[in-house]
Amino acid sequence: MEYLTGVRKKETIGFDVLKEMKTSSETIKVEGALHSIRRMGEISFLILRSREGLLQTVHEQGGSGFELTEIREAVFVTASGRLAEEERAPGGVELRLTDMRVLSAPEQPLPLAISKWKLNTSLEAKLNMRSVSLRNIKERAKFKIQEGMVRGFRDFFFDQDFTEIHTPKIGSKGAEGGSNIFKLDYFHRPAVLAQSPQLYKQMMVGVFDRVFEVGPVFRAEKHNTKRHLNEYTSLDMEMGYIDDFGELMAMETGLLQHIMGLLETKYEKELKLLNVKLPQTASIPCVRFDEAKQLVAVKYQRDIRTPYDLEPEEEVLIGRYFKEEYDADFVFVTHYPAKKRPFYAMEDPQDETYTLSFDLLFRGMEITTGGQRIHAYRELLEKLEARGMSRDGLEQYLDTFKYGMPPHGGLGIGLERLTMKLLDEENVRETTLFPRDMSRLEP
Amino acid sequence: MEYLTGVRKKETIGFDVLKEMKTSSETIKVEGALHSIRRMGEISFLILRSREGLLQTVHEQGGSGFELTEIREAVFVTASGRLAEEERAPGGVELRLTDMRVLSAPEQPLPLAISKWKLNTSLEAKLNMRSVSLRNIKERAKFKIQEGMVRGFRDFFFDQDFTEIHTPKIGSKGAEGGSNIFKLDYFHRPAVLAQSPQLYKQMMVGVFDRVFEVGPVFRAEKHNTKRHLNEYTSLDMEMGYIDDFGELMAMETGLLQHIMGLLETKYEKELKLLNVKLPQTASIPCVRFDEAKQLVAVKYQRDIRTPYDLEPEEEVLIGRYFKEEYDADFVFVTHYPAKKRPFYAMEDPQDETYTLSFDLLFRGMEITTGGQRIHAYRELLEKLEARGMSRDGLEQYLDTFKYGMPPHGGLGIGLERLTMKLLDEENVRETTLFPRDMSRLEP
Repeated sequence: MEYLTGVRKKETIGFDVLKEMKTSSETIKVEGALHSIRRMGEISFLILRSREGLLQTVHEQGGSGFELTEIREAVFVTASGRLAEEERAPGGVELRLTDMRVLSAPEQPLPLAISKWKLNTSLEAKLNMRSVSLRNIKERAKFKIQEGMVRGFRDFFFDQDFTEIHTPKIGSKGAEGGSNIFKLDYFHRPAVLAQSPQLYKQMMVGVFDRVFEVGPVFRAEKHNTKRHLNEYTSLDMEMGYIDDFGELMAMETGLLQHIMGLLETKYEKELKLLNVKLPQTASIPCVRFDEAKQLVAVKYQRDIRTPYDLEPEEEVLIGRYFKEEYDADFVFVTHYPAKKRPFYAMEDPQDETYTLSFDLLFRGMEITTGGQRIHAYRELLEKLEARGMSRDGLEQYLDTFKYGMPPHGGLGIGLERLTMKLLDEENVRETTLFPRDMSRLEP
Repeated sequence: MEYLTGVRKKETIGFDVLKEMKTSSETIKVEGALHSIRRMGEISFLILRSREGLLQTVHEQGGSGFELTEIREAVFVTASGRLAEEERAPGGVELRLTDMRVLSAPEQPLPLAISKWKLNTSLEAKLNMRSVSLRNIKERAKFKIQEGMVRGFRDFFFDQDFTEIHTPKIGSKGAEGGSNIFKLDYFHRPAVLAQSPQLYKQMMVGVFDRVFEVGPVFRAEKHNTKRHLNEYTSLDMEMGYIDDFGELMAMETGLLQHIMGLLETKYEKELKLLNVKLPQTASIPCVRFDEAKQLVAVKYQRDIRTPYDLEPEEEVLIGRYFKEEYDADFVFVTHYPAKKRPFYAMEDPQDETYTLSFDLLFRGMEITTGGQRIHAYRELLEKLEARGMSRDGLEQYLDTFKYGMPPHGGLGIGLERLTMKLLDEENVRETTLFPRDMSRLEP
């Protein structure tokens, strides 16, 4: 009988290890994609790309003991040679080749010049050829940073004793109501795709006290803007036994501190590649919705046209105001009007026009919506009635409250937007692996 | 200006900390749900439940300085008192109450006796009242163990230098083909829900070398069995530069070792609650598909009826065989017939009837399908043609190969099934937070 006993030790060595080793007396083997070739007469510089970055390898005609016959850009190879210091090479080392073998070769030359430092092509072209354009080192780095943010999110909430959950994406009713719901046929019954895990995460607060989820959400919104996606990754949390909704903002501040700390220590390479300056998160200012509107109306001489909502332009101005006045990249805007918040939002007992809720703006764009929720069964029923909403499809959600729920609240963060703002991108598609919008369903 | 500066320190203390403290001279405050009440004349034992477990609190009429008027089962409270050792109480401590305040009260008594050690009700009832039934300590523990498995999965692959990705769940074409695809209307265009992240994770191997994803997958399969779900959580990985498909099985063995190790150290409480004995993962036997069929046919005197596939009953017998003969809970079954594998599966060059692929059986049930994939563009085209499959909707997938891809392979694990087998459950719905099947779309 044959047995598997655990991870197999590889013969090849990673680029990062080589960059630590500096030199080798023995032959070393690596693997990678041929990122670019520069031929200088007898000498050729062959840059390899792996998940860890770039490695310079050098071939000398006659001296290397083999010919570069099959070797061309975009082949995948294993390469052997001696390691030597070379300060002009990436990471200060180069591999002086004694062998290079092709594992796999492309059928056609690459359609994009991915080895250029900056990929000089349109967003459309990049998205159409996603599996090629991301082979560019800087394009790829965006998604490593995105990985770091998700990782930081989970690590932080595990530390805070939250439980990770996985809630269904097909359901019988949307969480927020409204028309922006994708519908599907579920074995001849009408079903919808989840707009958010809202109702489920609340239902789980009575079980686990504190929960979080990372998963896709679906919005059939009919606008094509630079900041909207029809499918995105939502970072959600919900926590019980809160004293007030300020506790949620305090928690999110802690989260952002943790994420930035993780990026700084574990994603240094990518931050440097993309020239990202991490924002200050030690203290985040907090302003009431109506006050924020007033502040920017005065400072930037702007009429208030929509008293119950923030226009995107107003968000930009609030961001600008807090940058100029307080050097803050983040600002919590609190007490949104009840009119514009969903039925489960808790109203401010001091003034029921407003809710105990907030948005977090990052450089002038909303990246989080959160707040305290109604936990009393009767209040929920009254709210539904007042809004003329049906209880259909909400039975089990409402039962959860009938049998008791602690005071609680939570928030959701749009991952791609958070990445977009951190990387100072103009379009959320730049930081979405495979965007879905009104005109894009592929790749 | 008000500022948020980070996580707020709570006044209340967690049960686990109390169980370490043993006694206190000062008053201590906790929060929780009133799990059960036992009245013994003047003395009442009020068991609180929090995410950390149970805590006994004691009220003495006259002695505690307050009356138990509003206090009844299922209220959510804060409680204050002095901590004392009490060996008969959970965790060896009890809180001698001086105060108890109701944060929130249920409208109706609980419909299930959740404070019973074993929740004595049907699966249907448990699922219909999910947010209540999971308040039972043992029911809840299943999903903590499930959390641990996902956590172990990610930690392991981060350690192995994989990149986490998030791929879209709405697309234009299913990965595996076939009829078990949910269809939806995407802005008046036909779209489908992802059966797996297969094509996307392969496309990302050329970018990140090694990737993983944890996310929902959707299967419109029309059978209602104890082991099928129409939506489940898939743990997927895909890795480049593999020497052979054995490397994938070696990696999965390492993964299982890591997961079991994590459960043993961090989820000890839940393992004990559910009386789980962790399976041996130090070495996992491996057998060819045709050989496995033969072995059980001989030992259990059973005719081979389907030469190209394993019947569920055969999987059970293979599991039984390897338990009896090798005391193994896991067994890799390799070289599945090409007929039953998708178009991207690499055929065995030694015999093209078979593929370089495997399933992992855990206690007689398939929990993983994996294998090496075709990486040569022309081979992929030939395979599609041989199967009479159209390239429609596969353009960008195929382009990835046209521009070169390293040898690679991967695997997918069904999270709920893995949990089910570990916990020795009979029905996968027992280990699914909110199951979706042909008749269930709620809660």
